[in-house]
Amino acid sequence: MHETSTISAEEVPNNISQRLLDKYNEVRNHTLTICAPLRTEDFVVQPIVDVSPPKWHMAHTTWFFEEFFLSPHYKNYKRFHPRYAFLFNSYYETVGERVLRPNRGNMSRPTVDEIVEYRKYVDAHMREIIPTLSNELLKLLELGLNHEQQHQELLLTDIKYILGHNPLFPPYDESFSEVLDSERSSDFVAINVGIYEVGHEGDDFNFDNERNRHKVYLQAFEIQKRLVTNEEFMRFIDAGAYQASKYWHSDGWAWVKENDIYAPLYWHKIEGKWYRYAMAGLEVIDPNAPVTHVSMYEAFAYAEWAGMRLPTEFEWEVASEHFQWGERWEHTNSAYLPYPGFQKADGAIGEYNGKFMVNQMVLRGASVATPVGHSRPTYRNFFQPNLRWQFTGIRLCKR
Amino acid sequence: MHETSTISAEEVPNNISQRLLDKYNEVRNHTLTICAPLRTEDFVVQPIVDVSPPKWHMAHTTWFFEEFFLSPHYKNYKRFHPRYAFLFNSYYETVGERVLRPNRGNMSRPTVDEIVEYRKYVDAHMREIIPTLSNELLKLLELGLNHEQQHQELLLTDIKYILGHNPLFPPYDESFSEVLDSERSSDFVAINVGIYEVGHEGDDFNFDNERNRHKVYLQAFEIQKRLVTNEEFMRFIDAGAYQASKYWHSDGWAWVKENDIYAPLYWHKIEGKWYRYAMAGLEVIDPNAPVTHVSMYEAFAYAEWAGMRLPTEFEWEVASEHFQWGERWEHTNSAYLPYPGFQKADGAIGEYNGKFMVNQMVLRGASVATPVGHSRPTYRNFFQPNLRWQFTGIRLCKR
Amino acid sequence: MHETSTISAEEVPNNISQRLLDKYNEVRNHTLTICAPLRTEDFVVQPIVDVSPPKWHMAHTTWFFEEFFLSPHYKNYKRFHPRYAFLFNSYYETVGERVLRPNRGNMSRPTVDEIVEYRKYVDAHMREIIPTLSNELLKLLELGLNHEQQHQELLLTDIKYILGHNPLFPPYDESFSEVLDSERSSDFVAINVGIYEVGHEGDDFNFDNERNRHKVYLQAFEIQKRLVTNEEFMRFIDAGAYQASKYWHSDGWAWVKENDIYAPLYWHKIEGKWYRYAMAGLEVIDPNAPVTHVSMYEAFAYAEWAGMRLPTEFEWEVASEHFQWGERWEHTNSAYLPYPGFQKADGAIGEYNGKFMVNQMVLRGASVATPVGHSRPTYRNFFQPNLRWQFTGIRLCKR
Amino acid sequence: MHETSTISAEEVPNNISQRLLDKYNEVRNHTLTICAPLRTEDFVVQPIVDVSPPKWHMAHTTWFFEEFFLSPHYKNYKRFHPRYAFLFNSYYETVGERVLRPNRGNMSRPTVDEIVEYRKYVDAHMREIIPTLSNELLKLLELGLNHEQQHQELLLTDIKYILGHNPLFPPYDESFSEVLDSERSSDFVAINVGIYEVGHEGDDFNFDNERNRHKVYLQAFEIQKRLVTNEEFMRFIDAGAYQASKYWHSDGWAWVKENDIYAPLYWHKIEGKWYRYAMAGLEVIDPNAPVTHVSMYEAFAYAEWAGMRLPTEFEWEVASEHFQWGERWEHTNSAYLPYPGFQKADGAIGEYNGKFMVNQMVLRGASVATPVGHSRPTYRNFFQPNLRWQFTGIRLCKR
Repeated sequence: MHETSTISAEEVPNNISQRLLDKYNEVRNHTLTICAPLRTEDFVVQPIVDVSPPKWHMAHTTWFFEEFFLSPHYKNYKRFHPRYAFLFNSYYETVGERVLRPNRGNMSRPTVDEIVEYRKYVDAHMREIIPTLSNELLKLLELGLNHEQQHQELLLTDIKYILGHNPLFPPYDESFSEVLDSERSSDFVAINVGIYEVGHEGDDFNFDNERNRHKVYLQAFEIQKRLVTNEEFMRFIDAGAYQASKYWHSDGWAWVKENDIYAPLYWHKIEGKWYRYAMAGLEVIDPNAPVTHVSMYEAFAYAEWAGMRLPTEFEWEVASEHFQWGERWEHTNSAYLPYPGFQKADGAIGEYNGKFMVNQMVLRGASVATPVGHSRPTYRNFFQPNLRWQFTGIRLCKR
Repeated sequence: MHETSTISAEEVPNNISQRLLDKYNEVRNHTLTICAPLRTEDFVVQPIVDVSPPKWHMAHTTWFFEEFFLSPHYKNYKRFHPRYAFLFNSYYETVGERVLRPNRGNMSRPTVDEIVEYRKYVDAHMREIIPTLSNELLKLLELGLNHEQQHQELLLTDIKYILGHNPLFPPYDESFSEVLDSERSSDFVAINVGIYEVGHEGDDFNFDNERNRHKVYLQAFEIQKRLVTNEEFMRFIDAGAYQASKYWHSDGWAWVKENDIYAPLYWHKIEGKWYRYAMAGLEVIDPNAPVTHVSMYEAFAYAEWAGMRLPTEFEWEVASEHFQWGERWEHTNSAYLPYPGFQKADGAIGEYNGKFMVNQMVLRGASVATPVGHSRPTYRNFFQPNLRWQFTGIRLCKR
Repeated sequence: MHETSTISAEEVPNNISQRLLDKYNEVRNHTLTICAPLRTEDFVVQPIVDVSPPKWHMAHTTWFFEEFFLSPHYKNYKRFHPRYAFLFNSYYETVGERVLRPNRGNMSRPTVDEIVEYRKYVDAHMREIIPTLSNELLKLLELGLNHEQQHQELLLTDIKYILGHNPLFPPYDESFSEVLDSERSSDFVAINVGIYEVGHEGDDFNFDNERNRHKVYLQAFEIQKRLVTNEEFMRFIDAGAYQASKYWHSDGWAWVKENDIYAPLYWHKIEGKWYRYAMAGLEVIDPNAPVTHVSMYEAFAYAEWAGMRLPTEFEWEVASEHFQWGERWEHTNSAYLPYPGFQKADGAIGEYNGKFMVNQMVLRGASVATPVGHSRPTYRNFFQPNLRWQFTGIRLCKR
Repeated sequence: MHETSTISAEEVPNNISQRLLDKYNEVRNHTLTICAPLRTEDFVVQPIVDVSPPKWHMAHTTWFFEEFFLSPHYKNYKRFHPRYAFLFNSYYETVGERVLRPNRGNMSRPTVDEIVEYRKYVDAHMREIIPTLSNELLKLLELGLNHEQQHQELLLTDIKYILGHNPLFPPYDESFSEVLDSERSSDFVAINVGIYEVGHEGDDFNFDNERNRHKVYLQAFEIQKRLVTNEEFMRFIDAGAYQASKYWHSDGWAWVKENDIYAPLYWHKIEGKWYRYAMAGLEVIDPNAPVTHVSMYEAFAYAEWAGMRLPTEFEWEVASEHFQWGERWEHTNSAYLPYPGFQKADGAIGEYNGKFMVNQMVLRGASVATPVGHSRPTYRNFFQPNLRWQFTGIRLCKR
């Protein structure tokens, strides 16, 4: 994703540098904080293609700064290692060949210690260069920091997958709560028919896929104040909805059949009682907490079963000032497509968002794994409709 | 897909019955006319999962009438064969188990002659029952006839695939022209910003996915009067665009690489010259004809390369009265999703459209293979973005 | 497979030509006789990769004569069709590119009628050329006829697969018996320890894989006079042996699990009773008939369960004059490997047998589908250990 | 594999216990010695299904002693961890469910430190129990130690795969030599026709697949004193043999095509010069060293190209006293099948060898990775014909 108008014209350049240097330090440290509870072995594995090894996230986010700042702009910069660009490029076709995603978990080297050294090396050089950057590069720096924040969320969800699929179910952090102190009202908010504006406008940081701000015409609708709960979802299970094709998309039904899906990810029925793996370890399911780790297919089927529907991303955005959000990424029934006037940036940065605008669905909001301050009402997250390892949830609309 | 308000309240019931009986005879005969040039062997094969054997189409469309009219409503009806419902159900999960799609081409029996007998048997009974049907069932009958028309287009495209992938390249019909006498102006039509209405309204036949008619807000845009030509597309090929990731969706690029795509379907370079397989046989490519048999991925990449974009389905619909259409199904950059107020019908008929509303893209217009009178400006066709065996084409928008 | 010393030095050349011309006419006609009960559609399909469409067999055996006799040796021969060599070459890498085996069932053209014309055309030319052939080419001719006989057996087993996997279970020929009037004694024959000779010697036709005749040292063993019966095999099923890993090879167990194997091919349990599809149609299983259509994995597991073992191919050959054989191809516990002194012929004919001498197991004897006179005690048939569509059976050895 | 007659009747029981206790200590320590050069991350990954993570080998060999000695025979034994039996069972179906082989590399826990603790815990208990074991269990103990020795060889080959497929090519141990000081004569040894005895006899340890010792009849043959060298194999490459189907098995040719095989495993052509990854790191290829890491398919094709053949396992065994062996596992043209009189043991130990006796080929000798004293002339190693990650080599026979 690339930014546009992050830095207001009025801000004094030195202040910007200082602010971003502070943010740089904070963001870079936070990645290490997330990794602190891990054992060395946890950094290495990749149980499914969507999950990356934690040490890969640590190195890839560092490569971003080396590739786009130090290598082109730091005079006489010597790369930490000549092969790391090959190892830690994620998907930028423009920047050259790379380790294919399914092979990341086969790479025992470099070691975690070596990657920590890599981070220190790049950080030291970045701290030197940040005060000298042009406004254009400061914008790119803010993108790099938002990029690392996105990987911080993936780090948490990937760690959860790695530990939650280990037969020993080791906790990540027993003090990690997956629930916020949110309003739990089942009331619906009514929104009137009319023209609304959606998309981002203004000087604060945002991604290219949130622009341009534009008018949309919405029909009247009602949207629920809280997310669907575990208790409600258990009723869906008990009603046999995982065995009833009529609630599902055709592709969703094929996915259920092929993968023997019968409950959300991380749910286990042990001696007749439902448990789930949480960041704090295996726990009895809390009926009042929002259901989590459901795919878009499951969210859609739940809504069908409940006689309601998922909101579109525009309905969600318009209604978002009327309810609390941020506990789960909320499935919408909108495909991830460009806004009017969308323009890809030139070069590798242009690969950030645009090339993914097919075959994925939009999620809105944020989750307990999202870094504080990273999201906003216009933020567009996106995944394939079968994926479940993010902290996803369901908010219902009335037809 | 299911219809709603096909039959106007004012029409005298007897007239309706008579009109639909005439249409029944005409549609049922047209299927046989399409199959007339085939050899018996051509009716049997299924070279890829998306293509069905012609004899399967002949039987499946017949099964539809047996399943939804004769079996429930014709007194003491005796099915032509007790196993045909199993063999010729396509995807209606509600109606029971069925031969899986990839196995259709393994079924040498029933023979073509037996299926022709099946058609005669069902037709004779249908002609008896049609004059007695309620208005509700007459609506369903009109759906059945539109259903058969959709399979008539698939029959042609599947036959083209079967013959066009045979190393002998046998023609289907040397008099079949794939080109209409369309306007070939490269001018663009300009449409103003504003609120427009899209979707179907009125008493004539339409599918549930075209409803409800509703308002949308569109930005100003320009759209080209003609489709992209073969000559233009050859420039795209010559420019190396099939080898340049930057023009492609990420999924599109993976598709190009995995399948070694380098030209539209049915194109062959023979001694330095481009040929294509057409219904009339192998022919030198006509530079002025519209490019055909391109996937949505290719259409998107072409537009990127040309510095333009594909229209959304709403832009297409609003602009459609300003240009000629009907020669090719036209790719849009819209995902196939429900309109506001969309409701699935109950029972098997409800599986017609709604369950496909994920992972597919909308095509608008019609093609030279579409039965006359079958399409309309609000008609929504839909396929996965990698498919190419339909008569597809590209119309460009200016950003 | 290629022959060596088929034609004895003493036979008068003219007699040889005449004898082989008669055999040519007989063999070529027999292929048509086998196909007589088929409907046109049955000639086209290929439900699994191991099964070829009947029309492919008809054309491929014809191509063999065109490729190795008419094209090189008939003066000014004009091929029936320039593309048929590409379409109907089976696996001879030396002879050029070919349609890949999994695609044979996608070829609706040439039609059956066209292939019958192809056969007539080649036969007419062959009848002219046979009287003029050198001894060397007469040997090759005898190979070509044995080759066609091998395809006659495959024709029958492939037809059985095509009709037996059709949900309508159409009979092939209601007068076709799969059982011979064989001895059914459960006694064992005892063979003493010692040196024995195995392999072929002499002037009659034989394949290169049967040579050289050589000495082997065998331990004493006992072998059963009759084959394992359906009744015995049902006891194996009832004992839960398909669910007990201990009787199976590791690969066999994986095959059972992956393919949900629970009975021989063509067996169906209908309302608590076992039926099987036979060439004469669906029938109640005859308890006294030999069990058929079992893989080598199943034969091995059966022997383990019965506390016995399969014979080696040498044990089988040495003991074969003491029991009746020819009803089923009999699984051995010998891998298909070359005999001492084995030499591949030069050129395409050298691909006949040698290149398959890995990953396959030897079957001995013959079956009810084998053309009369085609097999002999030294004949080595070979298949992968998971395959079941041949008429296979089990003969036990005592340890 | 299970032993039979390892312990001679005359040996005083106490002496046996003491000898095996010493061997236990030595073998168990040697596993740790092999792992000493590794970094923690190297213990975790599984780049292909045939390779297991080093920590899995460390734990699995330990589980063997816990499962078959401590759990059944140590009074009131408390397992180190209740889930380890599930995690570290390899393929013993009889002993219960287990982590499927392809998932071993997804298991970050238990950590290497925890597995080292597991080893210590089991070792301490084993040292207590060994002096008390019956003769029967002492035999099983010797099997357990040979089992761990087999995993020591796999540890080395798996480590080589893990490091040798890392883009950084980290050495395992720069002092590790893959070459012995062997005779390099290209002469052939001639063996006469006759009856020979093969297989194991006597009281020293051996596996069930080496028995019974039995007579075989061999034709006269000649076998080369040294292994095929890298220089000879480069000539095979330069002659285009990887592109010439005629030298290959049909399955071998398909393997070459599908996997783009053009040289032995670990070979890299860098700026026109051949290098290979060795345990000591990337190195220029030594022309006089034996070619290594070739599959049976490649060994067979090489012999075909050279106009010779591979020996059978019996030829190898009979001739083995006439040449030096032990540098590479030597491909034979023998399938892995039971010897006359072969009997599987009861229970889980019976799964050791017998169930693999299909679809694999025998290798004879030993390699630089084989623990000292582990192999012998009757030892039968076995792998699928496409595998290359063992230290394999080629010895030629003259036809």
